[in-house]
Amino acid sequence: MQNIRIEKTTCPKEKPGNDNPLTFGTIFTDHMFEMDYEVGKGWYDPRVVPYHKLEMEPSCMVFHYGQEMFEGLKAYKTEDERVLLFRPDKNIERANRSNSRLCIPEIPEDVFLDALKAVVNVDQDWIPTKPGTSLYIRPFVIATDPFLGVRPSYTYKFMIILSPVGAYYASGLNPVKIWIEDEYVRAVKGGIGEAKTGGNYVASLASQVKAHDEGYSQVLWLDGVHRKYIEEVGAMNIFFKINGVVVTPDLNGSILPGVTRNSVISLCKEWGIPVEERQISVDEIVKAGKNGTMEECFGTGTAAVISPVGELRFGDDRMPIGGGKIGELTQKFYDTITGIQLGEISGPEGWIVEVK
Amino acid sequence: MQNIRIEKTTCPKEKPGNDNPLTFGTIFTDHMFEMDYEVGKGWYDPRVVPYHKLEMEPSCMVFHYGQEMFEGLKAYKTEDERVLLFRPDKNIERANRSNSRLCIPEIPEDVFLDALKAVVNVDQDWIPTKPGTSLYIRPFVIATDPFLGVRPSYTYKFMIILSPVGAYYASGLNPVKIWIEDEYVRAVKGGIGEAKTGGNYVASLASQVKAHDEGYSQVLWLDGVHRKYIEEVGAMNIFFKINGVVVTPDLNGSILPGVTRNSVISLCKEWGIPVEERQISVDEIVKAGKNGTMEECFGTGTAAVISPVGELRFGDDRMPIGGGKIGELTQKFYDTITGIQLGEISGPEGWIVEVK
Ligand SMILES: Cc1ncc(COP(=O)(O)O)c(C=O)c1O
Ligand SMILES: Cc1ncc(COP(=O)(O)O)c(C=O)c1O
Repeated sequence: MQNIRIEKTTCPKEKPGNDNPLTFGTIFTDHMFEMDYEVGKGWYDPRVVPYHKLEMEPSCMVFHYGQEMFEGLKAYKTEDERVLLFRPDKNIERANRSNSRLCIPEIPEDVFLDALKAVVNVDQDWIPTKPGTSLYIRPFVIATDPFLGVRPSYTYKFMIILSPVGAYYASGLNPVKIWIEDEYVRAVKGGIGEAKTGGNYVASLASQVKAHDEGYSQVLWLDGVHRKYIEEVGAMNIFFKINGVVVTPDLNGSILPGVTRNSVISLCKEWGIPVEERQISVDEIVKAGKNGTMEECFGTGTAAVISPVGELRFGDDRMPIGGGKIGELTQKFYDTITGIQLGEISGPEGWIVEVK
Repeated sequence: MQNIRIEKTTCPKEKPGNDNPLTFGTIFTDHMFEMDYEVGKGWYDPRVVPYHKLEMEPSCMVFHYGQEMFEGLKAYKTEDERVLLFRPDKNIERANRSNSRLCIPEIPEDVFLDALKAVVNVDQDWIPTKPGTSLYIRPFVIATDPFLGVRPSYTYKFMIILSPVGAYYASGLNPVKIWIEDEYVRAVKGGIGEAKTGGNYVASLASQVKAHDEGYSQVLWLDGVHRKYIEEVGAMNIFFKINGVVVTPDLNGSILPGVTRNSVISLCKEWGIPVEERQISVDEIVKAGKNGTMEECFGTGTAAVISPVGELRFGDDRMPIGGGKIGELTQKFYDTITGIQLGEISGPEGWIVEVK
C-alpha cells in the first residue's frame, strides 16, 4: 500500500459562517478521500483530492444491486484547537463486518484510519465549534462494475466525505416521539440488518413517512420473525431505564451494533449502573410505560449522540415518558459522551484519537 | 407531460458481430432514455439521448440509502423484422408497486410505455436475432438528492438502458443445480422482498457465493419467519411438477411477482394442467425429491425465461431431478413462451406489444 497522495483544491469553497445554524448533511467540505479496488490488484491509489462529482456508467452495479456500505462518525475541535475522532476503530471494525456480509472486499484497518486522519486533517478548518456542532464523516464503498447480472462486483470505490453539521434534530436535545411499527419490518435474522447498507434504510422509508404523518419523528422496529421483540430505531439503538435497570435489546443478528450503544453500556458498567442486553418484548415496554416503572427512554447514535424519548406509541397505546423532561441519566450520558468527544472529560482508554 | 425528445448519437458504437456469442449485461447500445423528477414539478424532460456517463455528487442518496428500483424485460426481432415487447404492461405495473413500497414517485404508465418504445425503436438495429438472443431492457430509478440523512429523496432520475444479450447461463438451456439456503435469508414479510430493488440482491450475494463454491449455480430461498417454506430463486421464481400437478409458492408478500411466473400459470390454466399457488414446505420438496413424485422442476424469469433444474440440494440431501434431462412440460413452456416472444406462436390477448 502506497502512502496517501494529497492533492489540494485550488478553489476552496466558502465555509458556512457561525451565524446561520448548521443543518445536517447538506454542506460538504473542500476535499474527499478516494481509493479504488480491482480484483487481483486489491485497494490502490489512496488519495485526498478536491471534492468532485463522480463519473459513473448507468450500468454501474451499485445503481441496480445495492452493493454499498457506509459508516458514520464525527470529528470535533477542542477549545485548544486539537482535532479529535471518537472511537474510529469501532467504525472501522464495523465497516469490515458490513463489507464481509455484503461480499465487498475488506479495507485494511490501518489504511482506513490513515485515510480518516488525512482527509480530516486537510479540511480541519471546516470543523465547526459552536456547541452541538461537529464534522460528520461519511466513509462509504460502492460497487462500480458496469455490469447487469447478480454477482459481487469486481471493482469498487471507497470514499470519505465530510459535512459540518449542527444538531441532527432541528429541535435540539428535546424529547422525541417514537412510533412502534407493527406493519412493516426493517430486517430479519439471516438478512442484512447487522450491516450498514442502503437496503436497510430504503426498507424503513415507508414506515417513517407514516410515522411522520402521525406526528412521530422516528420509528421503533420490532423483530421480523415474531413481530414482538424490540429492535432499534431508524438510525439509533434504543435504551430503556425500567425500575432502575438500564435495558437494551441484545445484538441478535438483525440490529446494527451501534458505537454509541457500546459506549453507553461501557459507561453503565463503569458507573455501577445495572445494565442488561436482552430480548425485550413490546408487551413489557407497554406495561412499563403504563404502570410507571419506565423511568427513562433514549436513543443512541452518532448523529444525535443521545436522544431523549418523550413518548412511545404502539397501536392505540400512547406512553408518555418523563413528563416532557429529559431524564436525569439520559442527560448524564449526553453530557459525558459529548464531553469526552470534545476532550473536556477524559474517557476510557482509547476512545479518543487525535488527528495531527 | 411533453413528448419524448430524441437526440441521436453522432458517433455510433460498433455492434457486436453475429460471430461471437453474446454474454449477458456487458454491452450497451448507442442510446438511453432519461427523465428527471423534482418534488413540486413531477417527472419532466423525457428524452432519448446518446448513452452517456452520469455525473453524480458523492453524497447522492442512492449511494447511501439504497433508494433505487429496477425492472427487466426484453425486446425481440421477428423474422419479418418486427420489434416485439413481451407483456411490458406487467413490468410497468410492478415498477410502480416497487416505487410505492420504496417511497419513489410513481411513473405515469403511458409515459413509461412510450419511453420503452421510443428507446427500443431508436436502437432497434441492436436487437440480435440468433436463437436465444434478445435485447435486454433495464428501466431503473435512482434517488439523486445530494443529502445525508434518512428520508425519501426529493429528486430522482429514471433511465432505460439496453443490452443485446445471449443466453443468461453460458451453458444454455441445460439443467442447473440449485442450493436450498438454510443460513441466510433474502427477505421477510413486511420488508421489501416484493419490490425489485438493490437491497434484495445484495442480501443474496453471500449465499450465492457459498452455493457457487459448492458447485451450485443458484440459491433457493426459504421464508424468513419459519425458515421452512420455499420462496424463490436468486432471479427467478420456482415451479415444481409433483404427481402431475404444477405447484409454485403463492405471492405471500416476500417474493417477487414474476412476469414469467404469471405467464406460466396462465398457460397451465389455458392448457388444462392443474396448477396450485400455495405454501410449499421444504420437507414436502425433499420428500417428493426422494420418493420419485417430483417429476420436473424449473425456474422462471426474464433473463433465462425457463431454467430446467436438474438437482436440488438441502443440507446433506441431494435430490436429482429428471435424470439430467429437461422435463417435457419444462421444454413445452420454454418453446411456447419463447415462440410467443418471437412472434412465431400467437399468445393470449395483449401479451405482445409491437414497437413501431
Ligand atoms: C440502523 C441504525 N442503528 C443504530 C445506529 C447507531 O449507531 P452508532 O451509534 O454507531 O452511530 C445507526 C447509525 O448511526 C443506525 O443507522
Ligand atoms: C428475485 C426475482 N425473482 C423472480 C424474478 C422473475 O421475474 P420475471 O419473470 O418478471 O423476470 C426476478 C427477475 O427477473 C427476480 O429478480
